[in-house]
Amino acid sequence: MVYLTRRERFSSAHRLFNPDLTDAENDKLYGKCANSNWHGHNYELFVTIKGEVQEGTGVVINLKDLSRIIKEKIIDKLDHKNLNLEVDFLKETIVSTENIIIAIWDELELEINKINAKLHHIKLVETENNFAEYYGEKE
Amino acid sequence: MVYLTRRERFSSAHRLFNPDLTDAENDKLYGKCANSNWHGHNYELFVTIKGEVQEGTGVVINLKDLSRIIKEKIIDKLDHKNLNLEVDFLKETIVSTENIIIAIWDELELEINKINAKLHHIKLVETENNFAEYYGEKE
Amino acid sequence: MVYLTRRERFSSAHRLFNPDLTDAENDKLYGKCANSNWHGHNYELFVTIKGEVQEGTGVVINLKDLSRIIKEKIIDKLDHKNLNLEVDFLKETIVSTENIIIAIWDELELEINKINAKLHHIKLVETENNFAEYYGEKE
Amino acid sequence: MVYLTRRERFSSAHRLFNPDLTDAENDKLYGKCANSNWHGHNYELFVTIKGEVQEGTGVVINLKDLSRIIKEKIIDKLDHKNLNLEVDFLKETIVSTENIIIAIWDELELEINKINAKLHHIKLVETENNFAEYYGEKE
Amino acid sequence: MVYLTRRERFSSAHRLFNPDLTDAENDKLYGKCANSNWHGHNYELFVTIKGEVQEGTGVVINLKDLSRIIKEKIIDKLDHKNLNLEVDFLKETIVSTENIIIAIWDELELEINKINAKLHHIKLVETENNFAEYYGEKE
Amino acid sequence: MVYLTRRERFSSAHRLFNPDLTDAENDKLYGKCANSNWHGHNYELFVTIKGEVQEGTGVVINLKDLSRIIKEKIIDKLDHKNLNLEVDFLKETIVSTENIIIAIWDELELEINKINAKLHHIKLVETENNFAEYYGEKE
Repeated sequence: MVYLTRRERFSSAHRLFNPDLTDAENDKLYGKCANSNWHGHNYELFVTIKGEVQEGTGVVINLKDLSRIIKEKIIDKLDHKNLNLEVDFLKETIVSTENIIIAIWDELELEINKINAKLHHIKLVETENNFAEYYGEKE
Repeated sequence: MVYLTRRERFSSAHRLFNPDLTDAENDKLYGKCANSNWHGHNYELFVTIKGEVQEGTGVVINLKDLSRIIKEKIIDKLDHKNLNLEVDFLKETIVSTENIIIAIWDELELEINKINAKLHHIKLVETENNFAEYYGEKE
Repeated sequence: MVYLTRRERFSSAHRLFNPDLTDAENDKLYGKCANSNWHGHNYELFVTIKGEVQEGTGVVINLKDLSRIIKEKIIDKLDHKNLNLEVDFLKETIVSTENIIIAIWDELELEINKINAKLHHIKLVETENNFAEYYGEKE
Repeated sequence: MVYLTRRERFSSAHRLFNPDLTDAENDKLYGKCANSNWHGHNYELFVTIKGEVQEGTGVVINLKDLSRIIKEKIIDKLDHKNLNLEVDFLKETIVSTENIIIAIWDELELEINKINAKLHHIKLVETENNFAEYYGEKE
Repeated sequence: MVYLTRRERFSSAHRLFNPDLTDAENDKLYGKCANSNWHGHNYELFVTIKGEVQEGTGVVINLKDLSRIIKEKIIDKLDHKNLNLEVDFLKETIVSTENIIIAIWDELELEINKINAKLHHIKLVETENNFAEYYGEKE
Repeated sequence: MVYLTRRERFSSAHRLFNPDLTDAENDKLYGKCANSNWHGHNYELFVTIKGEVQEGTGVVINLKDLSRIIKEKIIDKLDHKNLNLEVDFLKETIVSTENIIIAIWDELELEINKINAKLHHIKLVETENNFAEYYGEKE
């Protein structure tokens, strides 16, 4: 069992905002991250799959397939976009790093199963000081 | 003559957009960077001053002073802000990396002169693949 | 279940030294790390907590709370300090990366429990070639 | 139980190539990685061992011993070499990242056991976008 | 006058070898870099151009044009190739970092002039410890 | 004319302290950097030489010679040492980044001249946010 990781990147605008709260409550909860004029980040996304090495090829999967899936399903939809306004799979979501990473997992899991790999771990780096990780563990 | 560099960081939203052009022209010129819903970046700002080492202290300037000036004049105004909408010294500016770096130079130069240093060089990193530099050379 | 990591940094002096051994024995055991005049490092500390995303906020915890706890309990006590001489929670300890990381865990665990998160993992990077990790596993 | 990681580096030539396939099949499978004139990488190897802190020394193992083993068993054999042609423990192997990492594990495991540590994890970084990991899990 | 830098990357095989010398002389001169079975690197190429900000666009040049030129003229020819055997503009050259960087300059200079920019500086990183820079200064 | 850079690293203890000042004055001037129990850093040293490519070898100098000089003259004397107490060429010096870099220049210049290269630039990185540079410019 070997684990393979592919890194992709996207640059997006977002804000932390709960529509059920007042502006004052949002400001208190999220501080400058609630700025109504948006801010943005260069995100780094690390997608790790696991599987067994195929005897005929010496690889678990063709990394180009993994890269293509991540680009089509995630990067093309998030890069140079507004995460609150423009992403189909983030509608009605508070776009925290936590919620983004869970939504990315749900987008990728089925597609990755199709290339005979198993999605194992996602890491989403928001700044050099903050990142989130997810293993698909539901409550 | 020694050169000292201080790095600071900010995360902002922006778009490339020339109000004198049509939407179609902006799209053609700037591509996805013209997205009307904004996108954003983690910027890294490197400010380099030069000066002679002071005999009594062994340093050119107190780096805390340089850091304080950069924070007050630049970071507090740009971090978690929309560069097109919320920054006094970027009003009426196409907020390209080139124009941001020139505007930052103009904000910092006088303040840094007051601490007996000379602003030498600014580097603004937009992504790991793109950065701009400026030495204050006017046309 | 999502995992969140906050990085903080500190720069400290230390030496590896066992007071029960002779100087020659310490030198043989630790080499240049036993230098009686001290040496030092820029340490990077990665603290990972785990928890469930809160529905009302979209986040597991407020990262500012985590950052504040790490700063008050760890960084303020270690940064620009001598790890052998000046840190209350490292008294009587051989200040190896291993022992520092266990001591940091013990300092943080209770405080992090108070913000409804669970301390999951600590990583302490001493140089670009060496780091230690700890999951709170006691013998 | 503490986990210690040592990073070492090597720069090597290789190609992905299955001798049981035709050139056209290799090209289709591996793309530019099958180039018969070779290409190469700067690899980063992270070796993680786990163990308990020894009371007398405050460390799990002497990191110099770990570094020496990795250099003698791995780096000296791979650095500035052709991975397809010159490495005894990679003979008859398709030198994918996956197969290299498994082979490195098999080379290191016994040697690391001799210094009272347990090999826990190996990470092999091929480019800034691709890396493999292995925990010794056999099918 | 603003300076803009674009980073691109390539992974290649090469060896240091002077055909006018004996094998023993090559070995003595270049050590392990002369290995007749090749070795390889992940190279990072930083290309810096300089120019004035265009009033109508707010940018010096369109970075996509610079990226396209570097890819067509350099990366497509070097990436996953053997620098000694397969690169038209490196024929008859000892493929040291120094000679590669001069050859890249000569390939890029004319093309970059065509997009109204001036090639200013090239940096070629061979490993994290070694890099070369060139400003087009001929003897 | 090509510029070649070699990076080396050292980890040292130091404090900022002017013996002509009182403790209170030192504290006011240098803050936590004046801590009488020392602190420390992982320093990165980048040494850049310039020269013309030698026709017979394709290189400006043999980088191993440059690395050897830096190690013998600088790293062996600074690594795992106390910069205030143990370094012959830093005696009577306030060991600020500025003064260290000038002293390193003076140590290296003559030695590098002997290998037919010209010392061009030194960069000393103290933390990821602070570094100094020197070109040998005397007042």
